[in-house]
Amino acid sequence: MTVKLIRGGTIVTATDTYQADILIRDGIIEAIGLQLEEDGAEVVDASGHYVFPGGVDPHTHLDMPFGGTVTIDDFESGTIAAAYGGTTTIVDFCLTTKGEPLQSALDTWHAKAEGKAVIDYGFHLMISEINDEVLAELPAVIDNEGVTSFKVFMAYKNVLQADDGTLYRTLLTAKELGALVMVHAENGDVIDYLVKQALEQNQTDPIYHALTRPPELEGEATGRAVRLTALADSQLYVVHVTCAAAVEQIAEARNQGLEIWGETCPQYLVLDQTDLERPNFEGAKYVWSPPLREAWNQEVLWNALKNGQLQTVGSDQCSFNFKGQKELGRGDFSKIPNGGPIIEDRFSLLFSEGVRKNRITINQFVDIISTRSSKLFGLFPRKGTIAVGSDADIVLFDPNVERVLSAETHHMKVDYSAFEGMKVTGEPVSVLSRGEFIIRNKQFVGTVGSGRYIKRNKYGTTDNDHAAKVMINS
Amino acid sequence: MTVKLIRGGTIVTATDTYQADILIRDGIIEAIGLQLEEDGAEVVDASGHYVFPGGVDPHTHLDMPFGGTVTIDDFESGTIAAAYGGTTTIVDFCLTTKGEPLQSALDTWHAKAEGKAVIDYGFHLMISEINDEVLAELPAVIDNEGVTSFKVFMAYKNVLQADDGTLYRTLLTAKELGALVMVHAENGDVIDYLVKQALEQNQTDPIYHALTRPPELEGEATGRAVRLTALADSQLYVVHVTCAAAVEQIAEARNQGLEIWGETCPQYLVLDQTDLERPNFEGAKYVWSPPLREAWNQEVLWNALKNGQLQTVGSDQCSFNFKGQKELGRGDFSKIPNGGPIIEDRFSLLFSEGVRKNRITINQFVDIISTRSSKLFGLFPRKGTIAVGSDADIVLFDPNVERVLSAETHHMKVDYSAFEGMKVTGEPVSVLSRGEFIIRNKQFVGTVGSGRYIKRNKYGTTDNDHAAKVMINS
Amino acid sequence: MTVKLIRGGTIVTATDTYQADILIRDGIIEAIGLQLEEDGAEVVDASGHYVFPGGVDPHTHLDMPFGGTVTIDDFESGTIAAAYGGTTTIVDFCLTTKGEPLQSALDTWHAKAEGKAVIDYGFHLMISEINDEVLAELPAVIDNEGVTSFKVFMAYKNVLQADDGTLYRTLLTAKELGALVMVHAENGDVIDYLVKQALEQNQTDPIYHALTRPPELEGEATGRAVRLTALADSQLYVVHVTCAAAVEQIAEARNQGLEIWGETCPQYLVLDQTDLERPNFEGAKYVWSPPLREAWNQEVLWNALKNGQLQTVGSDQCSFNFKGQKELGRGDFSKIPNGGPIIEDRFSLLFSEGVRKNRITINQFVDIISTRSSKLFGLFPRKGTIAVGSDADIVLFDPNVERVLSAETHHMKVDYSAFEGMKVTGEPVSVLSRGEFIIRNKQFVGTVGSGRYIKRNKYGTTDNDHAAKVMINS
Amino acid sequence: MTVKLIRGGTIVTATDTYQADILIRDGIIEAIGLQLEEDGAEVVDASGHYVFPGGVDPHTHLDMPFGGTVTIDDFESGTIAAAYGGTTTIVDFCLTTKGEPLQSALDTWHAKAEGKAVIDYGFHLMISEINDEVLAELPAVIDNEGVTSFKVFMAYKNVLQADDGTLYRTLLTAKELGALVMVHAENGDVIDYLVKQALEQNQTDPIYHALTRPPELEGEATGRAVRLTALADSQLYVVHVTCAAAVEQIAEARNQGLEIWGETCPQYLVLDQTDLERPNFEGAKYVWSPPLREAWNQEVLWNALKNGQLQTVGSDQCSFNFKGQKELGRGDFSKIPNGGPIIEDRFSLLFSEGVRKNRITINQFVDIISTRSSKLFGLFPRKGTIAVGSDADIVLFDPNVERVLSAETHHMKVDYSAFEGMKVTGEPVSVLSRGEFIIRNKQFVGTVGSGRYIKRNKYGTTDNDHAAKVMINS
Repeated sequence: MTVKLIRGGTIVTATDTYQADILIRDGIIEAIGLQLEEDGAEVVDASGHYVFPGGVDPHTHLDMPFGGTVTIDDFESGTIAAAYGGTTTIVDFCLTTKGEPLQSALDTWHAKAEGKAVIDYGFHLMISEINDEVLAELPAVIDNEGVTSFKVFMAYKNVLQADDGTLYRTLLTAKELGALVMVHAENGDVIDYLVKQALEQNQTDPIYHALTRPPELEGEATGRAVRLTALADSQLYVVHVTCAAAVEQIAEARNQGLEIWGETCPQYLVLDQTDLERPNFEGAKYVWSPPLREAWNQEVLWNALKNGQLQTVGSDQCSFNFKGQKELGRGDFSKIPNGGPIIEDRFSLLFSEGVRKNRITINQFVDIISTRSSKLFGLFPRKGTIAVGSDADIVLFDPNVERVLSAETHHMKVDYSAFEGMKVTGEPVSVLSRGEFIIRNKQFVGTVGSGRYIKRNKYGTTDNDHAAKVMINS
Repeated sequence: MTVKLIRGGTIVTATDTYQADILIRDGIIEAIGLQLEEDGAEVVDASGHYVFPGGVDPHTHLDMPFGGTVTIDDFESGTIAAAYGGTTTIVDFCLTTKGEPLQSALDTWHAKAEGKAVIDYGFHLMISEINDEVLAELPAVIDNEGVTSFKVFMAYKNVLQADDGTLYRTLLTAKELGALVMVHAENGDVIDYLVKQALEQNQTDPIYHALTRPPELEGEATGRAVRLTALADSQLYVVHVTCAAAVEQIAEARNQGLEIWGETCPQYLVLDQTDLERPNFEGAKYVWSPPLREAWNQEVLWNALKNGQLQTVGSDQCSFNFKGQKELGRGDFSKIPNGGPIIEDRFSLLFSEGVRKNRITINQFVDIISTRSSKLFGLFPRKGTIAVGSDADIVLFDPNVERVLSAETHHMKVDYSAFEGMKVTGEPVSVLSRGEFIIRNKQFVGTVGSGRYIKRNKYGTTDNDHAAKVMINS
Repeated sequence: MTVKLIRGGTIVTATDTYQADILIRDGIIEAIGLQLEEDGAEVVDASGHYVFPGGVDPHTHLDMPFGGTVTIDDFESGTIAAAYGGTTTIVDFCLTTKGEPLQSALDTWHAKAEGKAVIDYGFHLMISEINDEVLAELPAVIDNEGVTSFKVFMAYKNVLQADDGTLYRTLLTAKELGALVMVHAENGDVIDYLVKQALEQNQTDPIYHALTRPPELEGEATGRAVRLTALADSQLYVVHVTCAAAVEQIAEARNQGLEIWGETCPQYLVLDQTDLERPNFEGAKYVWSPPLREAWNQEVLWNALKNGQLQTVGSDQCSFNFKGQKELGRGDFSKIPNGGPIIEDRFSLLFSEGVRKNRITINQFVDIISTRSSKLFGLFPRKGTIAVGSDADIVLFDPNVERVLSAETHHMKVDYSAFEGMKVTGEPVSVLSRGEFIIRNKQFVGTVGSGRYIKRNKYGTTDNDHAAKVMINS
Repeated sequence: MTVKLIRGGTIVTATDTYQADILIRDGIIEAIGLQLEEDGAEVVDASGHYVFPGGVDPHTHLDMPFGGTVTIDDFESGTIAAAYGGTTTIVDFCLTTKGEPLQSALDTWHAKAEGKAVIDYGFHLMISEINDEVLAELPAVIDNEGVTSFKVFMAYKNVLQADDGTLYRTLLTAKELGALVMVHAENGDVIDYLVKQALEQNQTDPIYHALTRPPELEGEATGRAVRLTALADSQLYVVHVTCAAAVEQIAEARNQGLEIWGETCPQYLVLDQTDLERPNFEGAKYVWSPPLREAWNQEVLWNALKNGQLQTVGSDQCSFNFKGQKELGRGDFSKIPNGGPIIEDRFSLLFSEGVRKNRITINQFVDIISTRSSKLFGLFPRKGTIAVGSDADIVLFDPNVERVLSAETHHMKVDYSAFEGMKVTGEPVSVLSRGEFIIRNKQFVGTVGSGRYIKRNKYGTTDNDHAAKVMINS
């Protein structure tokens, strides 16, 4: 029986900020109080530190094939890096193939994670088609696997893209079964043309990745998804929102009372389109989809986080080495694997750029980095808060240390950092997963494979329904 | 030394919902945990109950003169009724008179409350003019009295109404000094004309109170206040928002990143303009300013609470007897004292109509009824949450009891209920103020005069700054 | 040499209203003046009549195959009916088939019209695909055929529907070549699903035509087309706008300075969704796509015509007999041929419901019914106005006669009227095409086949460029 | 009997552009035709010229007292300059004083104009108060004087400013009597404070005129006026709109169907706030109220003219010499007389910057510079068009001449030009007023005092109601 007493820190939740001690027994928070005592407990000194709930990253791609290669970070290196960065739960995207049984896809994803992950994890399920077989299998996916969120791509024509009919049916089905639909909102048809056109004109540099995916096409697709959601009376989560054009669509829909949620990512908050113009093909490091935008969009995104029109910050972790992977796109930007390494820096970037620069409050920080994702994706209150009865997924955070982000010091396997040389203030010092240290004094002390798969609750429900039969998400 | 142990309830905060016990010592929450034990503690059984932080009512008028009469409920009956209703802190409006020193007005208000209030209280300060004397006195009002919110009236021409220059200077001053400006947003000039016109045409019934204060004039004034706030780069709290026209102005401003907050009241959420047409002059019971609106506005208000465009629900408690007071307006609706009795029912109405009808989550309920007002008005974390270190202002709430609201059973002195005969689900059973029962098993067991005046923190700050120097409001 | 003198009428253009005489020589307006005299001229008494430019109908489908049948009105009966109704020019839609040369399609359409039409006509060209062949042929279509408007369907999946890439390329091409893109804006993918779903559930009555094409899907597609137009920096004309959801998208775009135009049709201004519920399968007579909407949308449309956010009213003439044609959809609403008979009543309905009911001014009426379509589609100033030098396409209109619309009295071949029994005020009494009577005292006196094909000018240009090199459309 | 034949020009109206001759008899347009002949007519060669209807300037201040001085241009020099500039009708503002009978104010204004004006003119009436005397006098003002537009100032506190109640009553009264309400929309209360504050801080330069009247205050007041108009169900014309904040309010209102019209001025279309920073106190030449704005607003204004959200361009002519008048404000910007000399350049600037730069079409130009003002202010069709029966107020315009605007060449008495050195293309060559030349080959050939006062029609009516009983304004 493991007992720990975390002493003297400042506990911060999405609502509260206060000094108290935390007593942990068997991985669960047993008590919180002033000057707690417990015989036999291991005492951890948290004075001078914030005590945050561990981060919940709602958007990762580990060990994922893409464009003929595979992300360099898998569930081992990826989750170790996540832990270093203060994240204790991820929900990764399970890809599917048309015609393949969903369970088979899930089995593949379980195989990727088991024995490797050092933090807890769940899976979203990609929906590429809706037919009788898929419909027949979905109830089991939700009930047996606890997979309660479906992803639909409106982009990547001829690869991942689903048509509007499929999106609409997914929205209807999700509503009926208790799942949340996630969309990648870009107009894939027009992008497909623009990319071909650019390549024909020998516009092959990384910057053309951005120029062939203009913000109008993200705004358009976001508006389309929003209106289909309204028609289906369903619920929608728009992943990786990058620009004003999309924020406006979401804000307008929410003001009308629609159940629409929006996520942005650290890269869109601190990097911009000019990074794609870096010389020596280094722009390839900054190839995400949707692409980085003109810098003025950053203030729009920060403001949307502040006023609640966007609710979460995911990493969209999807790392490829510059050498050998990103380089596949030399001479043809469309062959640059999309994505970048963020899982480790998401938490600290949001604290440093958000809280320290007074763009969001510290309680909003916790909500955005942990609590809200936990609630939206059926993990709450097991994850996402510091409260009696919750899992002791805890981050001891030094808010004042200054450091520089770099590939030399990060723990992802990927060979570059998108934030190379950037100064941040604040760092996770120690991290506990279910009451056990996985990071201690900035060193990984966990066990590979100790992370557990989590069956998630249905959308809008909670696993302490014994306590309260309540709607928790809206 | 008083020690209490609240056992077995379901604690609900603006973020969390969980089962745990609460240990209270000397009025402060000392610990929260699973199956706590404490020798000598009085054990309170909360099983089957929600354990909420006590309500914070940001908008009351007790013992207030208005139109030649005085509200029937003073700080004694008003706060006892508040306590019955689950509210443990109020912020009352201190009226001022042009030319009178502010401190004198505050002294008057202290005299009204001291020795009478049974729950803790603070004061907002009305600003009717800005001149050198007022400007000279304001810093002391904030520093010595802890009065960190100023009220400006855009209506009540020739009585309370301030001109736009005064509103603008108040916004500038508040920004500089760390206070929050509150506005009553209706266009007083036009209302003045419409009222005179109606009376000239012998339109004297209570319904003309509503018809001479149309929603366009609230929308207009709200928009005006919002734009002056933008120009002043200040912060604004719009009291008693009633209609779509005003919500739209607030939502648009917030989407642009302005620091604008909005409050509505239970009466606007559940009553409507047709109540003013009740026969036998009973419409007079439903005379508020702004007036009740067409019923379709209710959904707009609920939706704004859900999506965060409105943040609080105040009572605007301002009770006058039907007999002898409301009746002053027989034959002339403009002489009906404005306002009604709500302080006791605010908490339960929001729970019953909001949570039980799935319009808001139970955590949003706590935020709206308690936490957000506490944060906005400088009371947090002393008030507004259940967290270690906070005042033990706690409500044990039975969520399932069904009852009927009535003047016969309420505890305000006023001779009618605006909600007479309305069924609600859920009731505060016991209420503690700083760890002492004031309501126990639905009976008042407190001591008249035990409520304390609270000096409030400056806008955007918190009184646990030892713990965290953070911006907490936005 | 034909000379006519139209005496004593009130001439109305999109700007002016005045009493004067018109001298016509060889089909052209030679002079307008007070008490004109001309030896040898045939004098036509127009006293008590409005003298309008002939109507320009920008949206007709004559002799068009659809769903296995063909519209009952061809270029003979259709244009005779148009003439009775005050319309002297139409632009009909030339359908194309993937793989078929465009010229071949145009040849087919020429064959349909030649020798039959009694008024002048032009053709729009449908674009179902964009490939190298199509791109190579388009310049000739514009230069040789004077076809300067292209139609793209966003609905009718697997039949007429083009994907977004095709729409986008059409927008780019049109911009480059000087043409105007027209869209049928409904989301065909989702409609396809909704229709199948309804039929599976045995929902086969005509009303399900409307219920499976909800206004959200028109609003969505309109917004999509608008944003693609913005991205392409092109020009767009949205045909048959029916509802608030679409008007909002157009208005917002125009306020941002985009070159977006919108057309509605008489049926959307005076009929509504309940007409689809008429018994005995009569609802089938009211099957248009997009469908008739809830009646409250009518006011939105009228208002948009008044404030200029919509600019034209087309007929979308597309008539099928109830017997034998509409009846194809008994038991399956999806088999009801879409469309209805409007070409004859468009002019009078807009006058009666618009001008006589003070929704639009009489000058706006002329702009909407004639001038604006003429300008947008490259017919101006040959058509669309009463000015010296223009074709003498003229309507003598009695504004005060009251009559009842009916299949018994109309001149279309179709066996029903969508407006059966409706009273209108005002009627075309005599109609001239290029100076010759085709309707005289309400009788057809023209010659079958006298109508001429008109090569239209490029978008934004005029055929009197000798007079003024100006941009005329925006 | 005077007869003229204008040969060979290109006639342009708000709708049409065509080549024809114009026959004028006794000041009226008698005929328009191809190659007209008339014995005894004076033939005027207009070949190579546009033949425009004379400009209608809806907004002038001639011989107006302001801040202790009087505009340097009176009805003689002002209307001569107007004629040079292509304007043949003005509507000047008649100021009133509280307590003074309206007729007395009008008599004063008649005395200013009679015997001096060389073009026709009407008067708007300023409303500073609404009381029984004013209400009693207004019907006669409309019926006897033909003054059918009332101006209300929301700015100039303690001088011209009316309160919202007065504005609202004026709107009600105007609706009832058939007049159009015009507002100067700026928040005078806040400006009053900002000006005092600036002067206290020794911010006395002309630029502070702009900085103390920020666009937010124009947007606010515009929105307020719009909402009061909606409530009164009346009609409103917003004078001198300068910025996006105001355009948005107007556009939104019009989209909702409100009867709101907006005017901007040439200065706001081509000058900007930086002009106020010109050295040597020359910034004073650019002091208008509302002030010049940041340059980006210009595109918003142009776009609003293009899409019809603004409808007219007035001059707001109000000229003060730099020497001796503008200089009154040295050391105190608030003492700089507001206004500038524009009456002569309004027409050419809009042509050069608008038509020649493809921002508006040439027909829109005519509508904006002449027709629409004529219709809105009850002058149509006597003024504002080239049509048979209308006054022969005609401008022969050379569209290709390039010239430079300068005080050295203009004909106003004022000692500077706000557009000094600016190149424009196009110039009025000859101008006729009621068929008589007042400018011929760029020389004034008219007679001082030949201008006539015009009694204007009620709002929404026309003086050819014998021809058509129609609503002409919306």
